[in-house]
Amino acid sequence: MVSFKRRGGRRPGATDTRESILAAAREAFTRAGYRPATIRGIAAAAGVDPALVMHFFGNKETLFREAMTLPVEPAAVLSRALATSPDRAGEVIAATFLEIWDSAAHRDSLLGLVRASVTEQAASDMFRATILDGIEHALTEFGVSQPRLRGTLLASQLMGLAMARYILALEPLASAPRPDVAAAVAPTLQRYISGDITRESPRD
Amino acid sequence: MVSFKRRGGRRPGATDTRESILAAAREAFTRAGYRPATIRGIAAAAGVDPALVMHFFGNKETLFREAMTLPVEPAAVLSRALATSPDRAGEVIAATFLEIWDSAAHRDSLLGLVRASVTEQAASDMFRATILDGIEHALTEFGVSQPRLRGTLLASQLMGLAMARYILALEPLASAPRPDVAAAVAPTLQRYISGDITRESPRD
Repeated sequence: MVSFKRRGGRRPGATDTRESILAAAREAFTRAGYRPATIRGIAAAAGVDPALVMHFFGNKETLFREAMTLPVEPAAVLSRALATSPDRAGEVIAATFLEIWDSAAHRDSLLGLVRASVTEQAASDMFRATILDGIEHALTEFGVSQPRLRGTLLASQLMGLAMARYILALEPLASAPRPDVAAAVAPTLQRYISGDITRESPRD
Repeated sequence: MVSFKRRGGRRPGATDTRESILAAAREAFTRAGYRPATIRGIAAAAGVDPALVMHFFGNKETLFREAMTLPVEPAAVLSRALATSPDRAGEVIAATFLEIWDSAAHRDSLLGLVRASVTEQAASDMFRATILDGIEHALTEFGVSQPRLRGTLLASQLMGLAMARYILALEPLASAPRPDVAAAVAPTLQRYISGDITRESPRD
């Protein structure tokens, strides 16, 4: 809706400016949370006019979404794992999840996303739309029963792991070697993906 | 440090006043989060002087702790389950956890506690001290290996369940019948409590 003329031409600094705004936004959302962060404050931190932020991103929600872009597409990781070795999908998801979170380059965006999801409806809606719908789709393609319930159970363990290991930094989980943590949670993820999640079954 | 004169006298309302402050604090912490909530704002909402809040509670952390008191002692529930039917401890924990969260009377305190734990160091420290230490103690008494790691894994699934079902309200997990949810997560909790959580084992 915002018509943007300056976009054409050689504009040596347009990308840099956009990146500066995103960096400032990431920092503001991560530190302060979604609601307290303001377009005005982010613009000031990036050294630009608030109108320019609006010009690039239109509104705060879009800015948040762009600043907090996930480094991988969770549904794609799941789909690939289900296509290649479905019985080890839990292991693959656990390993990938931990690898990304353990990487300092991504940690801040992820922390911001989780913090904001817990406190802000807009972020929570975004989480639902961008992550969960894709996971449900991947599970539906795979043909398991109750794909959406499985997706939310999967999300519950992964979000809880992020909270315990990275946000609250509960020891010894916070500094346990990645393969140990992956081994501990993989069977949980595997069961949510393809195992028994009902109460009718007379299992042990 | 604040000398409070009005406290003496017949004080028909001392308990009521304390409760009003706690209710206002609960509401402020739940809505705004720990940091944005102020003693001044809470006092105003309760219709008392800020000095009175300080008088009763001393500081914001203590006020938070009192306002957000858990309706049950998680470690006590776990200890009791381990003492009576250790193989069903996961079921008991799941059922108790869901029952308390599903109760409207407790939901707000719990939401406030989780939200604040995610965003505030003080709340996160409190979580560690009041909940996790007790769980570790119960597991140590029970004699399982790696009690603290097990406690943090248990916390990870429970916190994630709270986030998914109550905070983000991810459907269908959010409105699934309690016994169904309990059945889905109980095996996870049971494994974290007393099952295999290592990667050395050659299990399936």
